[in-house]
Amino acid sequence: MKITTKVAHFTSPLYLESGRILEPYDIKYETYGTLNKAKDNVILICHALSGSHHAAGYYEGERKPGWWDGLIGDGKAIDTTKYFVICTNTIGSCFGSTGPMSSNYPSNEPYRLKFPVVTIKDMVKAQMHLLSSLGIYGVHSIIGGSMGGMQALQFAVDYPNFAKNIIAMATTYATQPWAIAFNKVAVEAIRRDPRFNNGNYAKDEFKELGCDGLAIGRIAGHISYLSPDSMGDKFGRRYVSNDGLFELFGRYEVERYMEYNTGNFSKIFDPLSYLYIVKAINTFNLSRGYESLYDAVLRIKANIHLISFSGDLLFLPREMEHLAKMLDRNSQSYTYHEIDSNYGHDAFLVELDKFKSIVSEVLSR
Amino acid sequence: MKITTKVAHFTSPLYLESGRILEPYDIKYETYGTLNKAKDNVILICHALSGSHHAAGYYEGERKPGWWDGLIGDGKAIDTTKYFVICTNTIGSCFGSTGPMSSNYPSNEPYRLKFPVVTIKDMVKAQMHLLSSLGIYGVHSIIGGSMGGMQALQFAVDYPNFAKNIIAMATTYATQPWAIAFNKVAVEAIRRDPRFNNGNYAKDEFKELGCDGLAIGRIAGHISYLSPDSMGDKFGRRYVSNDGLFELFGRYEVERYMEYNTGNFSKIFDPLSYLYIVKAINTFNLSRGYESLYDAVLRIKANIHLISFSGDLLFLPREMEHLAKMLDRNSQSYTYHEIDSNYGHDAFLVELDKFKSIVSEVLSR
Repeated sequence: MKITTKVAHFTSPLYLESGRILEPYDIKYETYGTLNKAKDNVILICHALSGSHHAAGYYEGERKPGWWDGLIGDGKAIDTTKYFVICTNTIGSCFGSTGPMSSNYPSNEPYRLKFPVVTIKDMVKAQMHLLSSLGIYGVHSIIGGSMGGMQALQFAVDYPNFAKNIIAMATTYATQPWAIAFNKVAVEAIRRDPRFNNGNYAKDEFKELGCDGLAIGRIAGHISYLSPDSMGDKFGRRYVSNDGLFELFGRYEVERYMEYNTGNFSKIFDPLSYLYIVKAINTFNLSRGYESLYDAVLRIKANIHLISFSGDLLFLPREMEHLAKMLDRNSQSYTYHEIDSNYGHDAFLVELDKFKSIVSEVLSR
Repeated sequence: MKITTKVAHFTSPLYLESGRILEPYDIKYETYGTLNKAKDNVILICHALSGSHHAAGYYEGERKPGWWDGLIGDGKAIDTTKYFVICTNTIGSCFGSTGPMSSNYPSNEPYRLKFPVVTIKDMVKAQMHLLSSLGIYGVHSIIGGSMGGMQALQFAVDYPNFAKNIIAMATTYATQPWAIAFNKVAVEAIRRDPRFNNGNYAKDEFKELGCDGLAIGRIAGHISYLSPDSMGDKFGRRYVSNDGLFELFGRYEVERYMEYNTGNFSKIFDPLSYLYIVKAINTFNLSRGYESLYDAVLRIKANIHLISFSGDLLFLPREMEHLAKMLDRNSQSYTYHEIDSNYGHDAFLVELDKFKSIVSEVLSR
């Protein structure tokens, strides 16, 4: 499978939900497979909070593939021999699309805290512009989990004629206070980190030592992505063998895991981007801009496929069920599957075997 | 109801589970009601992570009563006209018992990180010494929730002839990785707070501005004490009216609540104590020092009363059920109640009406 990575540069303004304007802006994106003549084989993949446009395949010299590689590829559930798959880095993120550390044109200085708040609606609008610029005016399917699922649903509501199928998993119709509270740990930890310095850090400030605030916030994130069961299975009460049980800072294995993962993450991910994307997640509400959730949902023309995970403690199955019931009452085209999984929220990244047949089936119809 | 608050000073060594010694040490404690002649009307109350010896009644000039005032008092479920109720501040805590900011005798300097790690077993042993010093060699009941429930169970295992009844609620037989992970947020946030300064802060360092690390850790704590339902009921998606929706640091009500509560808490509670008590919670394992959990449980002679809360996401009902099943298989005297509650872990502090009849019934037998 060939990976093509590109950056599209837009000089026309992006009118944001806030009333502010982003101009100019870049969207970094990746494609797999070939666009057919009829341009009707496009599948758009939307990434989650910490994800990127690199959804599948291996970069040269890398040992870790894209974040949904188990799902996307030649002969896989999202078959790149048939489909032209696109995944974009959302605006606000830090992997090549315009975000808070991008230059605030016409200056060469980064926006930092002057970057406008972007919403899921804005992320979706930016992706529409990219697709238009590629001559793509409709897609076969839009697929995403977590924040990616929010985007998929927002596409369905805002652009009812754009996608034939929407597959949204491990997500919600509006972010609930429980998820906002988890995000709050990161917001406060980053803001209060002196090296964050109110957003005025050097571009390579966190490259070596990482950003403490982001690492701490990410521990809370990891908790919300896992579950008592997945942690029990993975770590139990095992203690780090070189640490003394009666040393104050001696660690259980679950603690070492948290330290290691979040430490690495905080060297790679930009803390300002984290704040902006968390804001987009917190403010996500399908009904905003419409009379009600009912009115928003009524606009949908695509076939909606909702997948929740029984052990998801971040976006609870009942949130997707709420949406399913609404679609059902309106006799709109939908399916809803609750996948049995103890893995927690991250099931959408990990338990592919449990839901890839649903994806294949939607695509083969 | 009369409140008597005292400090007991011990010059004999407390031999800790770690092999280290605490000497001398103080235990601050509070009593309500009157000790009868037979000294058989004693009820010991054990507090949770952030609790204190002030379990009931109002201090002069204070508008907030002790933390279990709804349960303890004249004519209440734990009736202070009948019982002599004692609650001690655990060692390691910061409300008057010896903890990391106490003087490291014979110097006048605080222990800080030289304070020995204390365990639930050590907390219980210290309370045994206090009770002995008061001429109390057996008690009617020991009651506690969360870390207080750990102590109650540890009493039952380590001193099988000491208490007739044990009521342990919202707790576990051994702290699971899920709870340890929540605590990890606090551990890392405190350690990485520059003002924490590796424990070398001035005694009044956090009095005015609070300790950022502790406040951040406490946000994660609050999440684990509540639930999606209780947050949904309490806050929903309400936004702070003076904050702009599209301001990066504009807040949902749930965020304001977290800021406010944790900010205040971090002015009052000592961050070193928090680290030491979290360590005691993480290392809690009823089976340590015995061949197995089975062997530990088999030692119990008291009537055990276990209460879990269906919505408790910190110590899951199934953890108490595990203990109940073990007691059942051994034909030991026990009751187990799972209280239906959406409140989350804090139900043991909040939903008193749902379980106080169980407490009264145990005491009246």
